[in-house]
Amino acid sequence: MVSVNENYLKLRGSYLFSEIGRKVNEFQKANPQEKVIRLGIGDVTQPLPKSVIKALHSAVDEMAVAEKFHGYAPDLGYEFLRKAISDFDYKRLGCEIEPDEIFVSDGAKSDSGNIQEIFGKDNIIAVCDPVYPVYVDTNVMSGRTGTFMEETGTWSDVIYMPCTKETGFAPELPKKIPDIIYLCFPNNPTGATITKAALQEWVDFANKNGSVIIYDAAYEAYISEGDVPHSIYECEGARDCAIEIHSFSKNAGFTGLRLGYTVIPKTLERAGVKLHSLWARRHGTKYNGAPYIVQKAGEAVYTEEGQKEVRELVYYYMKNASYILEHLNAAGYTVSGGVNAPYIWLKTPENLTSWEFFDKLLHEAKVVGTPGVGFGPSGEGYFRLTAFGKFEDTVEAMERISRM
Amino acid sequence: MVSVNENYLKLRGSYLFSEIGRKVNEFQKANPQEKVIRLGIGDVTQPLPKSVIKALHSAVDEMAVAEKFHGYAPDLGYEFLRKAISDFDYKRLGCEIEPDEIFVSDGAKSDSGNIQEIFGKDNIIAVCDPVYPVYVDTNVMSGRTGTFMEETGTWSDVIYMPCTKETGFAPELPKKIPDIIYLCFPNNPTGATITKAALQEWVDFANKNGSVIIYDAAYEAYISEGDVPHSIYECEGARDCAIEIHSFSKNAGFTGLRLGYTVIPKTLERAGVKLHSLWARRHGTKYNGAPYIVQKAGEAVYTEEGQKEVRELVYYYMKNASYILEHLNAAGYTVSGGVNAPYIWLKTPENLTSWEFFDKLLHEAKVVGTPGVGFGPSGEGYFRLTAFGKFEDTVEAMERISRM
Repeated sequence: MVSVNENYLKLRGSYLFSEIGRKVNEFQKANPQEKVIRLGIGDVTQPLPKSVIKALHSAVDEMAVAEKFHGYAPDLGYEFLRKAISDFDYKRLGCEIEPDEIFVSDGAKSDSGNIQEIFGKDNIIAVCDPVYPVYVDTNVMSGRTGTFMEETGTWSDVIYMPCTKETGFAPELPKKIPDIIYLCFPNNPTGATITKAALQEWVDFANKNGSVIIYDAAYEAYISEGDVPHSIYECEGARDCAIEIHSFSKNAGFTGLRLGYTVIPKTLERAGVKLHSLWARRHGTKYNGAPYIVQKAGEAVYTEEGQKEVRELVYYYMKNASYILEHLNAAGYTVSGGVNAPYIWLKTPENLTSWEFFDKLLHEAKVVGTPGVGFGPSGEGYFRLTAFGKFEDTVEAMERISRM
Repeated sequence: MVSVNENYLKLRGSYLFSEIGRKVNEFQKANPQEKVIRLGIGDVTQPLPKSVIKALHSAVDEMAVAEKFHGYAPDLGYEFLRKAISDFDYKRLGCEIEPDEIFVSDGAKSDSGNIQEIFGKDNIIAVCDPVYPVYVDTNVMSGRTGTFMEETGTWSDVIYMPCTKETGFAPELPKKIPDIIYLCFPNNPTGATITKAALQEWVDFANKNGSVIIYDAAYEAYISEGDVPHSIYECEGARDCAIEIHSFSKNAGFTGLRLGYTVIPKTLERAGVKLHSLWARRHGTKYNGAPYIVQKAGEAVYTEEGQKEVRELVYYYMKNASYILEHLNAAGYTVSGGVNAPYIWLKTPENLTSWEFFDKLLHEAKVVGTPGVGFGPSGEGYFRLTAFGKFEDTVEAMERISRM
C-alpha cells in the first residue's frame, strides 16, 4: 500500500504566510469596502529597475529569433551572470569566490528549502528563534527535527538559539554542538545585524566543531552601517564551513521574477565529500535552470546603471523603515531593526499575543503584519512589519496605528 | 559530525545529459573546426511563438509600473493560467479537472523529480525500462531504490517494466504490485504510445491495487493518431489514482523559459491523506511560483493565435521526425517512434553498445544522440535521436549518417 511522507503530517498548520493570506482574504471578503494595507509578507511594491526592464525586453527579442534563441540553461547558470556575481558580490569585497562555485537558481526560498537535502537525516540543525520558517519546515519535511512539543512550541531534535531583547536579538553560540547552523543577517524577522568580529566567532566555532553554516544573505543590500559584513566569506576560514544564499528579490525587486543563487566553495568538504558536487548533482537532476531572460535581467542588476537603481530602491524602502521606526517610537511602541534591514520588530502592547495583535491590527487599523510567534516561540509577544510597502501606504498605516 | 545524504553517493556517474554534454565539449575542444549537430538532448531550436513573445513584452511592461507590478505569485500559480489549462487541456477533452487541482511550476523536470517527496520512503516504484532518468535518480536520492546491482544495471528495490521490441516498446502490467507507477506517453525515450483502452487497464490496475500513477504527458502535443489519449484523465477512475505532469517546453518551446504544471485531483487520497494537500504544502514551503511574465507567456499559448503557432512548431519538428525515420529506414536501420512523439528510437547497427554507437556517431558523423542504455538496461543496444533540431541540420545529420 502507498504510504505518504508522514513527516509532512507533523507540520504545524499551514505555512505562515499562507495562513496570513487566508486570514486577510477572509477579512477582505467580509469587509470589501476596507482598504487593507499589507506590511506583512516581505513582498516588494516598487516596479523593476529600468535597466532590468530593458534587459528583459532585449532578452525576449533574442528568444524570438532562431539564431539567438536560448533553450535549456547550463546546469549552474549562465557564465555571464555567475561572472558578474563573482566580481561584484565577492571579489569587490575581497572574497575569493569563483564563478564555478556559484549556482544560479529561482530564488533564495527554494535554495534555503532544498539545501538540507544534501545532508544526512541524522544531522542536528540549529536555528535562531525567531527564524524564517522555511529552514525549520523543510527539515521537518525531511524528518530531521524529531517530535513537536506542544508545551514549548519547539521540535525535540532542533537546537534553538533564542534571539531576544536580552541577547540584543542576536544568537549566542550554542552549548550543544549542532551539525548545521542556519544564520540570516541582516535578520529576517528581527532586522538585527551582526558585526564582522561576531560572525568570525561563528565561523571559528563551525570550523572547530566541523559544523556547516548556511548563511542567508538575502537582505545584504540593506546594510547601511560600516561594521556589518556583506558576506560570510569576509570571515577567515568561511570557505571551509559556509554555504551562502542570495536573493535578487529584495535588492532589485525580483519577488515576481524569481532569481537567486547559492555559493558552495569547492573547499567545503564533510564526511570526505565536496558539498559542491552534491549540490551540483541536485541541480542537474531536479532543476532545469532559471529562465534565460531572467538571468539576463540579473546581469543588468550588476551594471553601473542597475546598481544606481538598486540603491534608489533600497533607499525608498529604508525611508519607509525610518518612518515606521519614528512613528512607532512616538506612539510608545518598543521597536528594533529597520536600520540595516527592511524589517521592524516590535513588542506587542498590553502583553497581547502575536496573533491577538495580528487580529487587532487587521480589524482596527486594517493593517497586515506578521505575528512574531509564527517565526518561533521566542517571537511570541512580538510582531514584524515590513518596509516594502508603498510610501503613502506606509504613512497611512502609521496614522491608523497611531489612532488605535 | 556532519553527515551527507549517502543516497547521493549511490548515484551512477553524473546525470545522463551532463555526461553527454561533457563528452561533446571534449570532442568540440579537440576538434574546434567540426560542426557538431546535436540531436541528443531534447532541447528545442525554434524561436518562441509570436504570441508568446508579445505576451512577454506586455508583461515586462507591466512590471515596469507600480500599479501593474506583480510580486510573489499565488502558491498554485495565477488563476488566469490555471483556468486556461483547465478549460483547454482538460474540459475540452471532457476531463473534469478544476483550476484549483492544477499546480503551476517551473517545469516538468522539477515536478517529476520533486513529486516523490510527498510519498513515504518505503514505497516501491515501478518504471519503464528504458526510462527518463529523473524518475529513478530522484528516488535514488531519497533512498527508495535499494542497492545498485552492477551485473544487471538495475536497483534492487525498483520494479522494472521492460519496453522492448518484443513488447512493442510498451510496458506490461507488472506481476509484483508497485506503490507508485511512473508512466510517460508519448514516451521518452522510445517515442512509443499507448491506446486509451490500454491506458484504462493501467488505471484499473492502480485502482484495484491502491497504486498511484505518475503520468508524464510532456509530449502530448505530438500525438497525431486518433486512439492515443492526451490525458490520463480521459480514463475512467483516473481521478482516484493518477497525478499528471505537463510541460510547456516541447509544445511551445519553453525549455529556456521554464513552465510546467502538475495536476493532483482532490479526490486522490492515500493512507487517508489528500495528496493534493501534501503537494500544496510542498509548493508553499519550498517554492515561490513561476515568474509572472512566464505565466502570462503560458496563458498566450492557449489563445487561438498561440495554438495555431504551437501547431506550426509541432509540425516543424514532426517534419524532422518523418525525415529521420525515412532516411534511417533507407539506410537500413531498425527504427520506431517518431509518429506521435519527437523521438526516434533506433537499434544500433552491428551489435554496438549504445555508448559505442554514441562515440562512433560523434566521431564519424559529428552527430550527437543519446545512448539508449542511459535510460535503463533494456535500452542497451538502442539509441535516441530527437526531432528538435533545425530542419537543415537534421537533413545534414541524415546525410552524414547515411555516409557512415
